[in-house]
Amino acid sequence: MAQLVVMYRAPKDPAAFDRHYFETHVPLAKRTPGLRKYEVSQGPVTTPAGPSAYHLVALLHYDDVAAIQKALASAEGQAAVADLQGFATGGVDILVFDTRAV
Amino acid sequence: MAQLVVMYRAPKDPAAFDRHYFETHVPLAKRTPGLRKYEVSQGPVTTPAGPSAYHLVALLHYDDVAAIQKALASAEGQAAVADLQGFATGGVDILVFDTRAV
Repeated sequence: MAQLVVMYRAPKDPAAFDRHYFETHVPLAKRTPGLRKYEVSQGPVTTPAGPSAYHLVALLHYDDVAAIQKALASAEGQAAVADLQGFATGGVDILVFDTRAV
Repeated sequence: MAQLVVMYRAPKDPAAFDRHYFETHVPLAKRTPGLRKYEVSQGPVTTPAGPSAYHLVALLHYDDVAAIQKALASAEGQAAVADLQGFATGGVDILVFDTRAV
């Protein structure tokens, strides 16, 4: 499997962020081809030492990194990426990698 | 479920990092109480725009954030945290959060 990890830094207006994220962005991202599972953080995103810089983390699961690249390059993926501009006002950090259980 | 996401920045000696990580750190972390699943990145950790600052990402799954806090506070968790000092020479970013599927 592979992970697209999307980490949203604290936005200017958290309530507006959440509304847009769940009403608009999640439906857009769910349309990307090859998506197997979509999880989001619930409640605060913390560190072992206290608060983190992040408001929300999304974990999108695909079969492999090639599938993530295909999803991001698709029309649906491009629409989801374009949508980020409108609500991810604190910035966003994205990681992509294949995974294996240990 | 909940996630402990451990993101290791590029270490000074990647081969030495990998050897220590898989031979010593994984067995230590696997002993933490409540661990349900342990995944690591395989191959490069990238971003949609190119390389990332990270060498390896670990995703440790527990039932909830309370279980993660208990795991980190346990003797086994403290041993795993202490072990970080010896090999995570590039630094490490850790996030903790509950998750839900959307």
